[in-house]
Amino acid sequence: MLAKLTDTGVLKHISVFAEVFCVNKRIGKQTVRLSGGAVIINACGVVGQKEGQGPLRSSFDEILTDDRLGTDSWEQAESALQKHTAILTAERAGLTPGDIDYIFAGDLLNQCIGASYGMRELKIPYFGLYGACSTMAESLALGAMTIDGGFAERVLCVTSSHFCSAEKQFRNPLEYGGQRPPSSQWTVTGAGCAILAKSGQGPKITHVTAGKIVDMGITDANNMGAAMAPAALDTLTAHFEDLNITPDYYDMILTGDLGVIGSDILVKLMAERGFDISGMHSDCGKLIFDIDAQDVHSGGSGCGCCGSVFCGHVYKLLKEKKLKRVLLMATGALMNTMTIQQGESIPAIAHAVAIE
Amino acid sequence: MLAKLTDTGVLKHISVFAEVFCVNKRIGKQTVRLSGGAVIINACGVVGQKEGQGPLRSSFDEILTDDRLGTDSWEQAESALQKHTAILTAERAGLTPGDIDYIFAGDLLNQCIGASYGMRELKIPYFGLYGACSTMAESLALGAMTIDGGFAERVLCVTSSHFCSAEKQFRNPLEYGGQRPPSSQWTVTGAGCAILAKSGQGPKITHVTAGKIVDMGITDANNMGAAMAPAALDTLTAHFEDLNITPDYYDMILTGDLGVIGSDILVKLMAERGFDISGMHSDCGKLIFDIDAQDVHSGGSGCGCCGSVFCGHVYKLLKEKKLKRVLLMATGALMNTMTIQQGESIPAIAHAVAIE
Repeated sequence: MLAKLTDTGVLKHISVFAEVFCVNKRIGKQTVRLSGGAVIINACGVVGQKEGQGPLRSSFDEILTDDRLGTDSWEQAESALQKHTAILTAERAGLTPGDIDYIFAGDLLNQCIGASYGMRELKIPYFGLYGACSTMAESLALGAMTIDGGFAERVLCVTSSHFCSAEKQFRNPLEYGGQRPPSSQWTVTGAGCAILAKSGQGPKITHVTAGKIVDMGITDANNMGAAMAPAALDTLTAHFEDLNITPDYYDMILTGDLGVIGSDILVKLMAERGFDISGMHSDCGKLIFDIDAQDVHSGGSGCGCCGSVFCGHVYKLLKEKKLKRVLLMATGALMNTMTIQQGESIPAIAHAVAIE
Repeated sequence: MLAKLTDTGVLKHISVFAEVFCVNKRIGKQTVRLSGGAVIINACGVVGQKEGQGPLRSSFDEILTDDRLGTDSWEQAESALQKHTAILTAERAGLTPGDIDYIFAGDLLNQCIGASYGMRELKIPYFGLYGACSTMAESLALGAMTIDGGFAERVLCVTSSHFCSAEKQFRNPLEYGGQRPPSSQWTVTGAGCAILAKSGQGPKITHVTAGKIVDMGITDANNMGAAMAPAALDTLTAHFEDLNITPDYYDMILTGDLGVIGSDILVKLMAERGFDISGMHSDCGKLIFDIDAQDVHSGGSGCGCCGSVFCGHVYKLLKEKKLKRVLLMATGALMNTMTIQQGESIPAIAHAVAIE
């Protein structure tokens, strides 16, 4: 009888333990709750000269004095930028590459060479990601799940974009001096890196809402904001419904690079769904530049936009407890130049991570 | 006293439970042991006409009669192939998209459009990956960790490549009729899809050894095998050392697409490290074609090579218990055409998953 009681007690405790730490992390359709969470023990944002003249100039950890970083090509420059930002973040966290279990990295360049060439010397197990401009959130989501699942003590999440390599690849060589329509966005020269750990000091990733691919038929590659807003709507609505919370739960709902046009569309669409996010919504693409004075039309874009603004600016506000609850949701447009030439529409995605 | 005993008992049981199910999944430097494992409940390989004339013709789940799949472009054809293979695999598993928690997908095309356009209609939370030809193993690794970590019940892992879209993007338009050096490989037109689940019938993924980026300075884009072999060496050696096992632990050590040249290099390099894999090593790039009769020079390559051969052929051997223990290790070359033009060497990576 006594033994039985004990066993039942044991079983009960174990099932509770299992409930909390191992199983049933899914909430609703698309969201997972991290049981232990993943602490962002350090994050750095490094940007180019134009970004360094913007409103966030005092937030960034470094501002480049040479956007070419002393290399021979814009592609090499982007790899060097991503590598430099990763090493800087690790050093500031007092870590060497050997202390880090995995890298989750990606960028916009064909075959993600910014990440693969940037990370090749670090000798850390590497997972390459492609989420276009949603890559910072995708890397934080998978990195946090990897730690929470017990597979790693520390992971490094990094992404980048470079105005010159992006213009050359997606639009025209700089020398061509092509005109940019008012709806177009300015690819940020910048990189963001965050190091997640099982324990330590810093804001914690508590929930992840992974996005579905949403394609509303937009075909204008110069209006990414409009193409990506419906994906943001889909993920944000799922996040609120899964957790049964309202927008005011967060001090800040930070989108990656919807820009001026996409942000307006998202706020309107969310209002139609009964969620008023006008009070706490911010967009990295709007924050990083002085939209009018810096002639960036609809705002900043690129993996490095969300990367540098979150890791360089918002992370510090979280660390200083000026912000308590932030939902970071980066959006990505998953097309390429050829699909646009072939008349295809633009599939988009948005991944969200809740940070407290 | 009695209460104390009980508590100690409870604590002991809980810590054991924690040990087994939640923490300390890492073994050695690079390997993780899955506590519950992830069952491959179904897998399908679909290939093009040339692949359908090869030695594995009777293994594949489908052989295309039209490599264009009725679309207007080779890029659309690859997306259609990946979509068709994913839907076929889900149907054969008796699942609808709503039953699947996440997609892990990628391919070789710029910005991974094979996956993003292929998966856009499935309305399943999507993680885009870029691991070049290692993508099948990367998706299985992250998918299995996601299930084992308690974040998903079922995930879908899919990848593809297409000879015509790859030749057009990486080399020359088909119409150009460029000559191919003897060391070159033939990009497989094919897709592979595997569905992983927390429980069910089928072979289980038990361990994951994620690879580091290895770059030994090879600059010849027509000799991928030589560029990727050192990465395979690095991951395979780490796997054996982490688990303290020898190659004969496995019935088959299956590399993705090292081809004839890369396979020879790997077997030699492993022998120098004291591991004789000559008896149980196979390579998807060598298995899928009749190397001489089909004029494929060093063998098959591409994400779809490992994808279709593992999901179409080897999975069935595991399911029928003709193979008991397989180590699947896909290798990827992480360069692009521009880095080669700029004189850069080729960084490579290899991810391994142990299946029993």
